[in-house]
Amino acid sequence: MSAVFPLSRRVVAEALGTMLLVATVVGSGIMADKLTDDTALALLGNTLATGAILVVLITTLGPISGAHFNPVVSMILAIRRELPGSSLAPYIAAQIVGGIAGTVLAHGMFALSLLQASETVRSGSAQWLSEVAATFGLVFVILSGIRFRADAVAWLVGLYITAAYWFTASTSFANPAVAIARSLTNTFSGIRPVDLPGFIIAEILGAVLALMLAGWLLMEARNPETLTETESAP
Amino acid sequence: MSAVFPLSRRVVAEALGTMLLVATVVGSGIMADKLTDDTALALLGNTLATGAILVVLITTLGPISGAHFNPVVSMILAIRRELPGSSLAPYIAAQIVGGIAGTVLAHGMFALSLLQASETVRSGSAQWLSEVAATFGLVFVILSGIRFRADAVAWLVGLYITAAYWFTASTSFANPAVAIARSLTNTFSGIRPVDLPGFIIAEILGAVLALMLAGWLLMEARNPETLTETESAP
Amino acid sequence: MSAVFPLSRRVVAEALGTMLLVATVVGSGIMADKLTDDTALALLGNTLATGAILVVLITTLGPISGAHFNPVVSMILAIRRELPGSSLAPYIAAQIVGGIAGTVLAHGMFALSLLQASETVRSGSAQWLSEVAATFGLVFVILSGIRFRADAVAWLVGLYITAAYWFTASTSFANPAVAIARSLTNTFSGIRPVDLPGFIIAEILGAVLALMLAGWLLMEARNPETLTETESAP
Amino acid sequence: MSAVFPLSRRVVAEALGTMLLVATVVGSGIMADKLTDDTALALLGNTLATGAILVVLITTLGPISGAHFNPVVSMILAIRRELPGSSLAPYIAAQIVGGIAGTVLAHGMFALSLLQASETVRSGSAQWLSEVAATFGLVFVILSGIRFRADAVAWLVGLYITAAYWFTASTSFANPAVAIARSLTNTFSGIRPVDLPGFIIAEILGAVLALMLAGWLLMEARNPETLTETESAP
Repeated sequence: MSAVFPLSRRVVAEALGTMLLVATVVGSGIMADKLTDDTALALLGNTLATGAILVVLITTLGPISGAHFNPVVSMILAIRRELPGSSLAPYIAAQIVGGIAGTVLAHGMFALSLLQASETVRSGSAQWLSEVAATFGLVFVILSGIRFRADAVAWLVGLYITAAYWFTASTSFANPAVAIARSLTNTFSGIRPVDLPGFIIAEILGAVLALMLAGWLLMEARNPETLTETESAP
Repeated sequence: MSAVFPLSRRVVAEALGTMLLVATVVGSGIMADKLTDDTALALLGNTLATGAILVVLITTLGPISGAHFNPVVSMILAIRRELPGSSLAPYIAAQIVGGIAGTVLAHGMFALSLLQASETVRSGSAQWLSEVAATFGLVFVILSGIRFRADAVAWLVGLYITAAYWFTASTSFANPAVAIARSLTNTFSGIRPVDLPGFIIAEILGAVLALMLAGWLLMEARNPETLTETESAP
Repeated sequence: MSAVFPLSRRVVAEALGTMLLVATVVGSGIMADKLTDDTALALLGNTLATGAILVVLITTLGPISGAHFNPVVSMILAIRRELPGSSLAPYIAAQIVGGIAGTVLAHGMFALSLLQASETVRSGSAQWLSEVAATFGLVFVILSGIRFRADAVAWLVGLYITAAYWFTASTSFANPAVAIARSLTNTFSGIRPVDLPGFIIAEILGAVLALMLAGWLLMEARNPETLTETESAP
Repeated sequence: MSAVFPLSRRVVAEALGTMLLVATVVGSGIMADKLTDDTALALLGNTLATGAILVVLITTLGPISGAHFNPVVSMILAIRRELPGSSLAPYIAAQIVGGIAGTVLAHGMFALSLLQASETVRSGSAQWLSEVAATFGLVFVILSGIRFRADAVAWLVGLYITAAYWFTASTSFANPAVAIARSLTNTFSGIRPVDLPGFIIAEILGAVLALMLAGWLLMEARNPETLTETESAP
C-alpha cells in the first residue's frame, strides 16, 4: 500500500469489523436456532452468514487496517513485522471491545438481554485439538494467501471458515476476541467463560505452528537460473 | 465511466433491476414456503436466490444506471454528488414502480392474486434496530466497495445481504422500494403496510449513519512521503 | 478470440457440455430425492449442483464453442451474427443429442432404466409465464454479460440459474434441449413429453423479448464529448 | 512459474494439502451426521465444506506443488510432462500418507478411534460408472482450466466437486489417495477397504478417457489467417 491510514482509523476499522463479525456469528446463530429444530440446518445458516460476512468485511476494511479482527492474527503479523509492534496492543483492545459490542448488538436486534453468561460447555482435548487445527489452518491460509494471492485473501478466509465450521468438532472459533465475545451470549454460538482459557491457549498454539511451518514452506523459491549461485537469490 | 447512458435507459435499468430483485425475493419465498415446513430451510432458499440475483443484476445493470435498486442508496449517492441531483426523483420512482411490478410478476408466476395486502407484523424496537443495522452495513459496504474495489461491489452486496438475512431479526429489508413492494404480498416475505413507516425511517437512519462514518473512515489516506506537506495530497 | 476452433470440435464441446449439464440436473435431482423427504431440501441440492456445474462448464468449454448448451441462446446469437448461421443447425443438434446422452448417463449412474417417459405435469399459464420470465432473464444476462463483463459470464449464468430455480414456479428450465432431455426421465427433474411444446414456445418468446430489450438498453452509449456531433459516435 | 520449489517442500505441500482435504471430507461428514437425521442435509454440509476447502487449498498450495492432492492427477500431468517423472512416486506417496493423516486428525478432533475399517459398501457397476464419470469430469476440468484459465483452476475444481457430490451415485471420490484414507473411517464418508480396487480402477479409467479427449479437443486452435498455410501454426 502506498498510503497509510492513521492509527485512529485503523483501530476503529478493527473494532467495527470485529463487531459486525460477532454480530453475524451470534445473530445468525440465534435466528437459525429460532427457526428450526435441526441442528445441522442451524449450523448451515450460521456458516453461510459467517463465511459471507468475512469476505465482505475483509474486502471493505482490509485496505484500512488489514482486517485482522483476531488477536492471534495481529500477533503473528507483528512477529513477522508486517504490523508495527506499537499497533499490536491497540489492535487487540479494539478487537475485544468490538467483539463484545457485536454480541450486545445481536442481542439488541433479537430483543434479548444484552449481556449473558454462556452455559455451553466446550472443553476437553478433542475440542482443544480442534481449535489448534482450526487456527493452524486459518493462519497458514492467511500467510500463504498474502504471499501468493493477496487480492484473494478475503475469499480464502471466508471459504476456510465455511469449511472449518464443519470439519472441526469445535465449529472453529480460531479467534480469542470472538471467543470472549461469544462467552457473553447464552445462545447457539456461546461458550462458557470458564472454557475460554483452553480455547485461547489452543488458538495461540495453532497460530505458532502455522507461523513455523509457513516460515519454511513459503520461503522464497529460488530462480532455476540462480540455483547454483547464491542462497539469497529471489 | 467514459460513456454516459441517457436518463431514459438508466431509469428503465433501475425499474427492471428492482423488478427482478423483488420477483426473486417474493417468488423464492413463495417457492420455499410451499416446499417445506421448516422455516430455516425456507429462509435458506430465499437467501440463496436473493444473494445470487443481486450479484447478477448489479453486474449486468450497474454499467448502465449504477444498479442502486434502492432509494436510500440513490439518496446517499446524490448527497455525495455521485448521482446527479436531477436523477434522484426519477430513480426513486422507477425503483418503486419496478418493485411493485416484481411483486405482480412473482404472483403471476405462482398463480396467486396479483396484489395482496400483507398481514405479517414486523414492528417494534428490535425490528427497527435490525433495519438500522442492516442498512448501515449495506450502505457502508457500498461506499467502501466503491472506494477500494469498484469491480467487486456486486459480489460484496450479494454476500452482505446473504449474511444480513440471517444476522438481523428483520431479515434485512434495508430498502424502502423493496419494502413497499413486499407490503403487497401476503406470503413468506411480506410486511404489513402499516409497518412500512417504521422500517423506512430506520433504513434512512442507518444509511445516514453509514454516510457519516464512511466520510471519516474512508477519507483519502495521505502518502507517507507527503504527510508533512499538504492536507490534500492523494 | 484470435483463434477459431474447427466446427467438429465446437460441436463436440456443445454436446459434451450439454451432456454433463443434463447429467448434473437429472442426477442431482435423483440423489436429492433419494436422500430426503423434504422437497425444498431436494431442490436445494439440485440448485447447488446445477449452479456450480454451469460455472465450470461455461468456463472450460466457452473458449472452444461459446458454451451455449441451449438452442435459444444459439438462435439469439445467430440472429445477432455472433454465431455463424451455418453453425446453428449443428449446434442445436449437438445440444439435443448431448442432452439426451446426459439423461442416459445419469440413469446409468443411479442404476435406473436408461430412458423413461416423464409423468410430471408442468403446464398451464403460470408455468408458461415462469418460462417466459426465466428465459428472458437468462438471455438478458448473457447479452449484458457479453457486453460489459465477458470474463464473468460463466459466474453470471450459474448464479442466475441458482436464483431462477427458486423464483420461478417452473424451476426455470429456460432451455429447449435440456427440456427435451428431462422429458426422458421419470424422476425429480422430469417433464411430461406432452408439456414440451408449451415450454419451448414460452422459452423462445422470453428469448426474443430479451433480444429486443437488450438491443435498445445495451446499445453503445455515446461519449459525453461527442454527444452533439453524431449519432454513430462510439 | 519462474521459480521452482525444491522437491522436499513440494512433497510436504502435497501431504499437507491432502491431509487437510481428507480431514475436511471425513470431519464434516462426522459433524453433519451427528447433527441431523436427514441424509440430504448431511451431504449438503459435507459438500459445502469440501468445495470450500478445495478452493482454499489449491489457491494456497498450488504455487508450491501444483496442488494435485490426487494420484491420478499427478499421473496424468506426468504423462503430459507437466510434472517431472521423478516427482511422481514421491507425490503419490505424500498424498497417501497425508490422506491417512487427515483421517487420523478428523478422528482425533471428534474423539473417535484414530483408525477404523469402514463397513460402507460402495460397489457394483453403477458405482463404478459414477467414478469413471466423476474422474473424467475432474481431469477434463483441470486440463481445460490449465489451458484457458489457469488462475481459475482452484474455483473450477471446488465447484466441480460441489456438483459431483450430487450428480454421481458414488458422491464422487475421484481420487485414489482420498479413497484409501476414507477406507479407514467407519463414518459418513467411509468406503469398505475391499471396495477400493473397483473405485481406483474406475478412477484411472476416467482419467485416461479425459486425457484422450482433452488431447484432441483442447489442441491449440489455428489462427484464421494461417489456416491454409501450416498445421503447426499457433
